[in-house]
Amino acid sequence: MTVVAARAPADRDLIAALAAIVGERLSTSAAVREQHGRDESYHASAPPDVVVFVESTEEVAAVVKICAARKVPVVPFGTGTSLEGHVAALYGGVCIDMSRMNRILRVSAEDMDATVEAGVTRKTLNEYLRDTGLFFPVDPGADASIGGMAATRASGTNAVRYGTMREVVLSLTVVLADGRIVRTSRRARKSAAGYDLTRLFVGSEGTLGVITEVTVRLFGIPEAMAAAVVGFPDMASAVNAVIVTIQSGIPIARIEFLDEVQVDAINRYAGFAYPLQPTLFLEFHGSESGVKDQTESMRAICDEFGGSDFQWSTKPEERAKLWQARHDALYACIAMRPGRKGMPTDVCVPVSRLAECILETRRDLDQSFIYAPMVGHVGDGNFHLVMMIDPNDPKEIAEAKRLNERLIMRALAMDGTCTGEHGVGSGKIDFLTAEHGDALSVMRAVKQALDPQGIMNPGKILRP
Amino acid sequence: MTVVAARAPADRDLIAALAAIVGERLSTSAAVREQHGRDESYHASAPPDVVVFVESTEEVAAVVKICAARKVPVVPFGTGTSLEGHVAALYGGVCIDMSRMNRILRVSAEDMDATVEAGVTRKTLNEYLRDTGLFFPVDPGADASIGGMAATRASGTNAVRYGTMREVVLSLTVVLADGRIVRTSRRARKSAAGYDLTRLFVGSEGTLGVITEVTVRLFGIPEAMAAAVVGFPDMASAVNAVIVTIQSGIPIARIEFLDEVQVDAINRYAGFAYPLQPTLFLEFHGSESGVKDQTESMRAICDEFGGSDFQWSTKPEERAKLWQARHDALYACIAMRPGRKGMPTDVCVPVSRLAECILETRRDLDQSFIYAPMVGHVGDGNFHLVMMIDPNDPKEIAEAKRLNERLIMRALAMDGTCTGEHGVGSGKIDFLTAEHGDALSVMRAVKQALDPQGIMNPGKILRP
Repeated sequence: MTVVAARAPADRDLIAALAAIVGERLSTSAAVREQHGRDESYHASAPPDVVVFVESTEEVAAVVKICAARKVPVVPFGTGTSLEGHVAALYGGVCIDMSRMNRILRVSAEDMDATVEAGVTRKTLNEYLRDTGLFFPVDPGADASIGGMAATRASGTNAVRYGTMREVVLSLTVVLADGRIVRTSRRARKSAAGYDLTRLFVGSEGTLGVITEVTVRLFGIPEAMAAAVVGFPDMASAVNAVIVTIQSGIPIARIEFLDEVQVDAINRYAGFAYPLQPTLFLEFHGSESGVKDQTESMRAICDEFGGSDFQWSTKPEERAKLWQARHDALYACIAMRPGRKGMPTDVCVPVSRLAECILETRRDLDQSFIYAPMVGHVGDGNFHLVMMIDPNDPKEIAEAKRLNERLIMRALAMDGTCTGEHGVGSGKIDFLTAEHGDALSVMRAVKQALDPQGIMNPGKILRP
Repeated sequence: MTVVAARAPADRDLIAALAAIVGERLSTSAAVREQHGRDESYHASAPPDVVVFVESTEEVAAVVKICAARKVPVVPFGTGTSLEGHVAALYGGVCIDMSRMNRILRVSAEDMDATVEAGVTRKTLNEYLRDTGLFFPVDPGADASIGGMAATRASGTNAVRYGTMREVVLSLTVVLADGRIVRTSRRARKSAAGYDLTRLFVGSEGTLGVITEVTVRLFGIPEAMAAAVVGFPDMASAVNAVIVTIQSGIPIARIEFLDEVQVDAINRYAGFAYPLQPTLFLEFHGSESGVKDQTESMRAICDEFGGSDFQWSTKPEERAKLWQARHDALYACIAMRPGRKGMPTDVCVPVSRLAECILETRRDLDQSFIYAPMVGHVGDGNFHLVMMIDPNDPKEIAEAKRLNERLIMRALAMDGTCTGEHGVGSGKIDFLTAEHGDALSVMRAVKQALDPQGIMNPGKILRP
C-alpha cells in the first residue's frame, strides 16, 4: 500500500564504508532486508538497501556520518513492532538495527530511574529490575524496544496511571542527522533550562535523529495489586462507567474496554469464557487498604451503570494471563480471520466525547462487511480498531480506508487526535494537515532545521 | 547587571501602526515602560520602547506582524513575577502586556480541563473553579499568569504530586514570529500525531512565539487534606527523610524543605514560632483513609530520622496560612535585610544527590558574608537560595555570583540542571553551554527555524 520509490541497488562504496565501521555486522540479503522493511501491520515491506547491526552510540554516529555525506536515508529499527509503517525504507537506504544495543547501563534504586541502550526491550528491563522492587510501567503490548517506544511516544494499558513515554522519559542520547551525539537533558526530575529537547525527540519517529540511549523513570512495585473483569449491558454504560471513574480521581492502574466482538475473539484465543458483552478489564495498584478503597469505589460506579459482578484475578499468574490475553488482542483478531492481515488504527478523544465516538464507530462497523473488533485504553480516551483485511483485495482495502478515515474525522471533530499512541509513520501522514493546520508548518521548519538533507527516516510524519 | 543595548527612541511610524491595532491601549510613558522591563528579581529594568495592552490573539498576531515587518523585538509580559530577567527588553522593542487577556474561555468538568487566555492568573482560575470541585494545581508561589507559567515551565510546591506545566498543559495557542496563529495540539489527553509542539513552546520563554491561550488539566479537589510541620536535628536527616518518602511511593502532595535561616525569616515575617532547625512543611491529599495511611507512613519515616512531633494544620485557614508563609519566603528574606534585593536562584538534582548538594551549598553560604536562606521543593530534588544583596555594591554582587556559579557547577556535576523551575531568562544564559554541550546547537537551530529574524524576546535562553 505504500509506494516504494524506484532506486539504484546499494552502492559498493557505501557498503564498504559501512563495513569499515561494523565489520560483518551488516547484511544485504533479501530476507534480512525484507524483514527489516516491515512492521506488524498490513503495510507492505519496503526493504532498506542494507542493514547494519550496531553496538554503540559511536557506531551509530559513524554510520549516520557516512549516510549524511552521501545523502543516503537512515531508518532506525527496534523490534519492528510498530503499526504505521514506521520502519519501511520508502526511499531505500541504511537500516540501523538497534537490537544489539541491549545493555542496561545503570539503574538507580534511590533515584528510581534507569538508563538503557535503545535496543533493550521493556520486558528485558523489567526482568532485570525484578529484585529491586521497581518496575518500568509503559506497556504497549508488544515487547518493544525502549528506544522504539520513545521514538513513537508509546503508551498502553497503564498510561492512565503512570503516563506515556512523554512523561516517563527523563533524557535521551541522540545521534543527529549530521552524526553528532547529543544528550537531550540532565537526569534531574524537572528542569527549566531551555527548550524541551527530550520531548521534541520523543515521538519524532526517527525523523530528527537516532535515539541510542534512554533514561526512564521507574516506579515502585505496588504493595497490592488486583485485577477484575466486569461486563455491561451496553457500550454506553461501559464507557460512562469509565468516565465517572476518571472524574472520581480513582488512581486506577488499568481500565481497558473491549467490545463484544473483541471479547469473543479473546475468549477463543486465550480460552476464556467471558460473557459476550461490552467489558472492562480493570487493575488496581496501591497499599492493601488503598486497593480495597479503590475497588469499593469502582464497584459502586459499575453498579450504577448495570455492571456485572467483578470476576477477580488475584493471583499473579491469573493476572498475568488476563493481561497477556489483552495484549494478544491483535493476534486474537488475526486468529479469527486466518489469512487476513490486521489493519490496526487508534484515535484519542477528550473523555467527554468517548461514548459518542465509540458508539458511532461501532455503528459504522456494524454496517460494513469488514470484521473489526474494538478495544481501548479508555481511561485516556484512547481506543483501537483492528480491521481484518486481505491486503491483496482492493475492495477490502478501500473499505478499511474509508472506515479509518471516518473514524479519524470523527475524532478530529471532537477535538481528538488521529492517533493516541500508534504514531504517524506513513499510514497517517495524510491526516496531519486536518489535525494540525498551520502548526504542521512548524513541524516542517523543525524537521528542515535538524535534518536539512531529509535523510532521517524520510516519508514518516512529514512528506519529503 | 544586564547590558541594555543602546538604541534609537521608539519610532513614530511603529507607534502609529500599533495604535491602529490597539487604539489607546498603548503606552510610551517612562513609568509604564520601566515597570514592564523588570521582574521580581535583582535584574535591572530594561524598559521596552512601548507597551501594548492586547485583548485578543488576533491583536497579538497583528502586533507581531508589525514587529516582524520592522525587525522590532517582541517581549511578552504576564505579571512580571519571573526571576531571571525574562521580561527585560534588552534590545528594546514592543512589550505585549497580556493582562487584559483575562477570560476563562471554557471549563469542562467532564474532561477535567480548562482553556484560558494567557493573562488569567492561577488564583483567578482557581477562584472561578471553586464550585466545580476541581482545581488547577501548579503553584509557583506568585500569582503568576498561566501564559507566563507555561512560557517558563513553572512548577512549585505540589509539582511532586501533580506535575509541572510540562505535564499539566494540554495545548497552547501561539502567535509565531511571523504573526501566524497556531494551536500546538488537540485537547485529547495523549497523542502520537507528530512532534510535541506543546512541550516545545512550554518553557520557551517567549523566544519562539507568544502564548495567547492555554488549555490545562484540572484535578479533583481531594476529599481530605492535612498539612503538618516537622523539624529535624540536622539537614541531612531532613533531606534523607524526603528521599525515603519519595522512594516509598507515598503520593505526598507537598514536601517543602526550609533551612533554619529560612525558618527564622518566616517566623518573623508570618508570626510563627517554629523551632529554628531544618524543617519540612508537608501536605497530604486523598480520601480520609488515604490521608491517614499516608500520614502514618510519613510519621514512621520522620521518626526514623529523628523528626519532631508533627505540628498539624488541619483547618483550611491554618493550612492557607502555612502555605502563604511558605510562598512568602522571598518576601520574608527581603524583610530580614531591608533595602537589599533578593537574588533568587534554583537548581535541581537527582534525589540521591540532594543531601550532598544541599549540605555543600549550606557550607559555602556559611563561609560567606551573604545572607542566604535555603528552601526547596525537595521531593523533586529542586531547591532555592535567596541571596540578599545590595545591587549597587559590586562586592556583594560578585560574591553572590560566585556562590551562584559554585551552586550551579555543583548541581551540574551531579547530573542536575542549572534551573529546576525559574528558567534561564538572561540570568542563567551563560550556564547552558556547560549544561547542554552540543545539544545547545539543537536549540539554536530550532530558534533559527522558528524566529529567523531573532525578534522574539531576544537575549533570553540563547544569545542573539
